[in-house]
Amino acid sequence: MIKEAIFHRPKNNFAYAYDKDTLHIMLQTKKDDVVDVQLIAGDPYDWVDGTWQTTSSPMTKSGTTSLYDYWIIEIEPTFHRMRYGFKCSDEKETLYFTEGGFFSNKPTEIANYFCFPYLNNIDVFQAPDWVKDTVWYQIFPERFGNGDSSINPKGTLEWGSTVPTPSNFFGGDFQGVIDHLDHLVELGISGIYFTPIFKAYSNHKYDTIDYIEIDPQFGDKETFRRLVKECHKRGIRVMLDAVFNHSGFYFPAFQDLLENQEKSSYKDWFHLWEFPVVTEPKPNFDTFAFTSQMPKLNTENPEVKEYLLNVARYWVEEFDIDGWRLDVANEVDHAFWREFRKVVKAAKHDAYILGEIWHDSMPWLQGDQFDAVMNYPFTNSAIDFFAKDTISAQDFTDSIVKVLHMYPKNVNEVAFNLLDSHDTPRILTLANDNPERVKLLYLFQLSFIGSPCIYYGDEIGMAGGQDPGCRACMEWDESKQDRELFNYVKTLIAWRKEDPLVGNGGDFRFIHADVEKSYVVYEKSDEQRRLLFVLNNSDEEIEVSREQLSCGKTIHELAMEDGSVKKTSITLENSIQVDGLGFRVFEEIIG
Amino acid sequence: MIKEAIFHRPKNNFAYAYDKDTLHIMLQTKKDDVVDVQLIAGDPYDWVDGTWQTTSSPMTKSGTTSLYDYWIIEIEPTFHRMRYGFKCSDEKETLYFTEGGFFSNKPTEIANYFCFPYLNNIDVFQAPDWVKDTVWYQIFPERFGNGDSSINPKGTLEWGSTVPTPSNFFGGDFQGVIDHLDHLVELGISGIYFTPIFKAYSNHKYDTIDYIEIDPQFGDKETFRRLVKECHKRGIRVMLDAVFNHSGFYFPAFQDLLENQEKSSYKDWFHLWEFPVVTEPKPNFDTFAFTSQMPKLNTENPEVKEYLLNVARYWVEEFDIDGWRLDVANEVDHAFWREFRKVVKAAKHDAYILGEIWHDSMPWLQGDQFDAVMNYPFTNSAIDFFAKDTISAQDFTDSIVKVLHMYPKNVNEVAFNLLDSHDTPRILTLANDNPERVKLLYLFQLSFIGSPCIYYGDEIGMAGGQDPGCRACMEWDESKQDRELFNYVKTLIAWRKEDPLVGNGGDFRFIHADVEKSYVVYEKSDEQRRLLFVLNNSDEEIEVSREQLSCGKTIHELAMEDGSVKKTSITLENSIQVDGLGFRVFEEIIG
Repeated sequence: MIKEAIFHRPKNNFAYAYDKDTLHIMLQTKKDDVVDVQLIAGDPYDWVDGTWQTTSSPMTKSGTTSLYDYWIIEIEPTFHRMRYGFKCSDEKETLYFTEGGFFSNKPTEIANYFCFPYLNNIDVFQAPDWVKDTVWYQIFPERFGNGDSSINPKGTLEWGSTVPTPSNFFGGDFQGVIDHLDHLVELGISGIYFTPIFKAYSNHKYDTIDYIEIDPQFGDKETFRRLVKECHKRGIRVMLDAVFNHSGFYFPAFQDLLENQEKSSYKDWFHLWEFPVVTEPKPNFDTFAFTSQMPKLNTENPEVKEYLLNVARYWVEEFDIDGWRLDVANEVDHAFWREFRKVVKAAKHDAYILGEIWHDSMPWLQGDQFDAVMNYPFTNSAIDFFAKDTISAQDFTDSIVKVLHMYPKNVNEVAFNLLDSHDTPRILTLANDNPERVKLLYLFQLSFIGSPCIYYGDEIGMAGGQDPGCRACMEWDESKQDRELFNYVKTLIAWRKEDPLVGNGGDFRFIHADVEKSYVVYEKSDEQRRLLFVLNNSDEEIEVSREQLSCGKTIHELAMEDGSVKKTSITLENSIQVDGLGFRVFEEIIG
Repeated sequence: MIKEAIFHRPKNNFAYAYDKDTLHIMLQTKKDDVVDVQLIAGDPYDWVDGTWQTTSSPMTKSGTTSLYDYWIIEIEPTFHRMRYGFKCSDEKETLYFTEGGFFSNKPTEIANYFCFPYLNNIDVFQAPDWVKDTVWYQIFPERFGNGDSSINPKGTLEWGSTVPTPSNFFGGDFQGVIDHLDHLVELGISGIYFTPIFKAYSNHKYDTIDYIEIDPQFGDKETFRRLVKECHKRGIRVMLDAVFNHSGFYFPAFQDLLENQEKSSYKDWFHLWEFPVVTEPKPNFDTFAFTSQMPKLNTENPEVKEYLLNVARYWVEEFDIDGWRLDVANEVDHAFWREFRKVVKAAKHDAYILGEIWHDSMPWLQGDQFDAVMNYPFTNSAIDFFAKDTISAQDFTDSIVKVLHMYPKNVNEVAFNLLDSHDTPRILTLANDNPERVKLLYLFQLSFIGSPCIYYGDEIGMAGGQDPGCRACMEWDESKQDRELFNYVKTLIAWRKEDPLVGNGGDFRFIHADVEKSYVVYEKSDEQRRLLFVLNNSDEEIEVSREQLSCGKTIHELAMEDGSVKKTSITLENSIQVDGLGFRVFEEIIG
């Protein structure tokens, strides 16, 4: 047994409360090294005649990468507390792995065991229930719809008349969104994430001037209130973008600082290195990146904190928004986010708090800060495989299994699973303009664990490169839209809503990854049924044996046809064929 | 290279802020597998012509166990943010290890790298400065000194007239502590940790009746105030014991509940399962262990929280205490402790918060909850080796290296390193009554990183088994004290205060562990000097070669003699001898 590969450490993703009564315990071992893992567990105070009382329960292999096997178990300790260890066996030996290390015989001293001291309800990671069932749609407000030309900013260009640049304007506004809500309803959207809407000079509005004012190019507060109401009427939740890491250059506090320097009452609002504060040739204060236009806010300063927390509260309380997406969230201090969570949840107990973090985000996802992060590790895996075709089926499954085991299950269930955004090229462009690859991407995204998000226009086949290319005006001329793609996405979303196994109701597991032929088979299952997905990432037709599907002979085929999922019984003798860049989905009744 | 053994995950002990400008980064590899590790790091926004700018810096092997090597580096990122990866080489290959996995060539995409997003000052783990230099003394107040017989509880026995039982009383009190402060001053103590002093019927007082009243057997509030002042006058800080996990049976809220049941306004103060609440034959509510006398408090209830936080504030504000030791700390919710920290630090910015946790405690030591925990993993290693002689020199060094790498350095520097307590047998008893073993224990404890604590009476050679045996009356008859031991401990403490290398000013590293002959060699060093400690854990005399000491020929020997450390120059040709259960200490000038 390769002891050095065996890893467990309580809390985080390895031992956590799934709900107030349930613990999930996970162990990592080297791939194909250990054949059986038992959880040895007991209540720390349950002793009989000087002997600690334990039970032994088999753990299940929940996933495998090229390096590791992951073993999990769900357990409900009667008295909400547990000490535990792992009994690992291969053909040759059995080892007990505990906090105190490895033992050949079961350790008798309880001090050796791992400790989950107590399942306190308030510490349980708990995201809003509704997020699990939400399909998001990201809108860049300047580019979705121009519904009120009377508020067009100066120099507004005709809608879609030219390519987007870092500085041009097309007059997108709230009325434009309201006018097109039917499009979202038809698609099946249940949440909108708006990039910033507050007063700012740029077209992207990430350089906030006033956090309490809506940018006049989008409308006024009454229009926004109406927009939220119209969304809610349609079962669509609304999330805004909070740019709290830095302000814009024209934020009055920063302007005051530039003008009054050491005398400014805002000098502790930023991270200054020296006086006089200058922005040219280089900023001599902390900024977002090295952008002197975006001075980093000092969120440790109680005045700044109060100001920003009031902003957070204001838009929830006054406009009934349902969530905050937090820009550059990981560069702001944890202490601030802990207070932010309290304020936001007090204003609306089921508001969603989503951090923009592109990396492993466990430190923010322990129940005291965010409900979710933008799941870019998911994004990168899906894009590299299905869109760019730059990684093997094995690399793809490795990275997806890694993402799934990097966080607790209740975190994964509300992860914000995007494929692209205003910060990346569009999926069609990433897929070298191949709509079949886009279809595979959507099938994977919409049948995966989490809370998927569609970037506006992707669903009708819009293309666009890295920012600003990805920020083109929404195409409303149906003759220029890919209506087949639209219907396909709409069908997938409807299916996800209809069948719990497609979304978070099914456990995800890869069944097969074919490196040579570049296809993957995965299942979503519960105790009664399994859905089997075969996605062919190569141009060539493939033949997939029943063994690779690991299913019985009697199954149903599920086909996406004309906006609905058609179910046909089939008898599967030996194998199935899947077209190049095609897919097939089956259902098997198991329980 | 054994990829499966290579581990790193940002935050916790693997990547943390040591201070507001400094990051420590650590990597784990299989023992003796990797010969060179370089940290590849750069500012995430430092790009030139589309290429991310990085530097490469060698990491240092900071410790080795039977399974792993640990590599560390200290680095100060100019703009307080960093992306990084590891370049690992052995004789055959070089691999880049990043968040995205392993690569044969240096990855160009920054998304692959690990991320330390921003060094926010407020998130830096920061314990009070004074703790690093403190030597603690734990007092069980019922058993230290009876200075005022007029307040003896009913049935008080003559001091030391018999063995301690779970329920007898000897009348120890505050005046008794005041009377004997000279003993502590002579020993060199700079902090006292008192087990509970609040009103309770038991002799241990862990079953609190009133958190705002001192138990009358110890004195009144004025006496306590005087005690704190007398301590402070002598440079001794005072820490009290907060039993917030559970109350005592006679806590009025619990009595009210038993009496009024569903009508009690305290019914949400506890974790009840059903009505009527009963304590016999078994409690039908959550308790500490299964003790119906100790109902678990519902620290999620705002009323309970307010009550306990007021207690925490009261004793700091009104009596100027310097710290809180938190009983059964890991069974109380994290959310409560975060608020507790804010309240206590607001009352006294440099108060010390010490949790009683016997296990790996990283989740409580991230800057938002505790300053330290009772370091039982350290205790167990030291006791098993030096006192009980039940583990090998290799097992000992393994476990100590593991403890040192389990937490950030700034956490280790204030760890509460005890050898025993009111909850364990005394060290002399654990050492089978061999005072030479006790001396080795003290030498190791007092030359180690952290904040050491001496359990009252151990320093004069008191024996005692598991509770209640370990709670005997302090022996004040000097003829019955082991004065040699006392002088030895006093000398060690004085030396620790005098020479920064003995305490937290020196980096700790094992030089040699001899499994066959059961001895260890370790060093404490800075850039100028190293102290070399040779501790012989066997009864036989040993010969240790200069190679095993890895030192030059010209060194000083440091000997503990007559209460002071004597330094003698020696020329070391080949080897040294160390008596059975003896030790020798050397100093080498290196810079």
